[in-house]
Amino acid sequence: MAERGSIKEMLSGGVSEFELIARYFAPLARGFPGAFSLLDDVALIAPLPGHELAAKTDAIVGGVHFLPDDPPELIARKALRVNLSDLAGKGVVPRAYMVDLMLPEATSEQWVADFARGLAEDQEEYGVHLIGGDTNATRGPAAIAVMAFGDVPAGRMIKRSGARAGDKVFVTGTIGDAVLGLEALRGEVPELDANATAFVIDRYRLPRPRVGLGAKLTGLVNAAIDVSDGLVADLGHICEMSGLAALIDAPSVPLSTAARAAVAKRPGRIETLLTGGDDYEILFTAGPNSTGALMELSRVLNVPITVIGQMHSPSEGVQGKVTVLDERGRRLVFEREGWTHF
Amino acid sequence: MAERGSIKEMLSGGVSEFELIARYFAPLARGFPGAFSLLDDVALIAPLPGHELAAKTDAIVGGVHFLPDDPPELIARKALRVNLSDLAGKGVVPRAYMVDLMLPEATSEQWVADFARGLAEDQEEYGVHLIGGDTNATRGPAAIAVMAFGDVPAGRMIKRSGARAGDKVFVTGTIGDAVLGLEALRGEVPELDANATAFVIDRYRLPRPRVGLGAKLTGLVNAAIDVSDGLVADLGHICEMSGLAALIDAPSVPLSTAARAAVAKRPGRIETLLTGGDDYEILFTAGPNSTGALMELSRVLNVPITVIGQMHSPSEGVQGKVTVLDERGRRLVFEREGWTHF
Repeated sequence: MAERGSIKEMLSGGVSEFELIARYFAPLARGFPGAFSLLDDVALIAPLPGHELAAKTDAIVGGVHFLPDDPPELIARKALRVNLSDLAGKGVVPRAYMVDLMLPEATSEQWVADFARGLAEDQEEYGVHLIGGDTNATRGPAAIAVMAFGDVPAGRMIKRSGARAGDKVFVTGTIGDAVLGLEALRGEVPELDANATAFVIDRYRLPRPRVGLGAKLTGLVNAAIDVSDGLVADLGHICEMSGLAALIDAPSVPLSTAARAAVAKRPGRIETLLTGGDDYEILFTAGPNSTGALMELSRVLNVPITVIGQMHSPSEGVQGKVTVLDERGRRLVFEREGWTHF
Repeated sequence: MAERGSIKEMLSGGVSEFELIARYFAPLARGFPGAFSLLDDVALIAPLPGHELAAKTDAIVGGVHFLPDDPPELIARKALRVNLSDLAGKGVVPRAYMVDLMLPEATSEQWVADFARGLAEDQEEYGVHLIGGDTNATRGPAAIAVMAFGDVPAGRMIKRSGARAGDKVFVTGTIGDAVLGLEALRGEVPELDANATAFVIDRYRLPRPRVGLGAKLTGLVNAAIDVSDGLVADLGHICEMSGLAALIDAPSVPLSTAARAAVAKRPGRIETLLTGGDDYEILFTAGPNSTGALMELSRVLNVPITVIGQMHSPSEGVQGKVTVLDERGRRLVFEREGWTHF
């Protein structure tokens, strides 16, 4: 099939924004009555009986969160998944989302078709529906804002503020792959072999939010957050909101084979891995009575869950909420705790 | 007070995104428990008893919907108000909103402070609360995506699809001022005097969504939409979704003194006014039994409501859903029906 024209040319050729929506986005609203097939001005959504409705928005911007020539379907899935990850970290089951697309005028119809295909694949995977959105031209890089909605049993949203002294600190999956992937894309990790490089780049490009697990954590854990700013910074958020401090045992933090190889070549890299962010794993704290159930969940859902530290009361005169200890019990001091958006 | 540094400089000076949120945005979440003072990852929102929750998102982009050097408080209010207008057009009472900010790295803290002040003013005016959001850097122009939430009595959202043959077509306020304002900013309406020019520019810069009226229209009107794409295009949307056609009597369309002056100088301008968009008035259709109640509402709320035409069954062989007739009953043929986003 020949490359289709740009949106601008298409429009001058008679294809309107409305037709674009009808072709590529309205099919994504099928099966959600309150979306009105994207043919009205608002969507209607109510929480499931006995539940509360949770809402989250996060945007991604070309040149900051993705590269302008990344495959559009990957950009779409990343935009959606970073939001689903936030919901998962709160024990919320995702159900619907809206998308604001800001696209350079030269964007091709094929780009939009590929983007919508990425959304369609993730709708299948996560059981969500598109219920609204907006498309706009921009003279800047593409940007995509997503708002995601989901249900959480009433009163059981897992907050940052619920951690208790004595809780163990757990994390899912592995930490630090995404930031290694970003560095690999910049050619900064030459010591990784081709397989490891491909693995970490994929981890950077396509988050795997822990949607299935997140929904099972309500009632089992005391505090949770998805790891997007970086493990140390996100644990810091839990500490701050819970009025506690935390100790991380660095050698316990789960690393992929690729990340272990990178650290073996350059031990200082551990700081990058623990503070780099974009992991989209769930970091949570739980009391001793939950450990058995959590390990069973880990087994049933096939999601690795690892104990990496412990919550405790803040000590007088100690700077910083999160202390990271190396294999000999020495405190690691990091230049930066995590990634911020500016 | 000296001009504060850019966000980037601030950050290197120790002010994080989190502090920015704490200073300027968290105060906007006060009084809405489900916003958790913007200190957690998601917001919780449920419809009021007996109501459904309506959600809408719309983004505005610098260089497209506003000028980069427009006052930040006006940009903020426009971003919010275009969404409130959509809710009003559906009979929804707004209650909460989220904001994704995409800002050039050189944006000053003062800009953010002014932007937040604009939001604060509109929160007072419309009774809404900020419940979440995201801030990101962009290498392009500033862009702001807003998602607004509100309540509508269950089953009574006013749809595009409810119009009936024989309904009168009504519109609030005056039509065409915003597009004249945009043209005036470009120096294309030299015939307007200074007062009229200032009036239309203000109408372009700051929408006045009909929030108070919109909530009162449920049960009284059969179909409604806010006028953003242009009067003719938006009435076309009602026609399409209702399976009907419409007749507009052009001389009945309410024009401001400024717009009347502009048309007097150049009669062809009527096309621009009826198709220009950005009016943020409510266009609706209602049966004869509602007329008395509507005129009473108009009086009580001090919102002009004008009959401009009528809905009818589509005729065989007639092109176009919306027919506009001039003062002598001749059909006006427009080159374009309305504004699209690309």
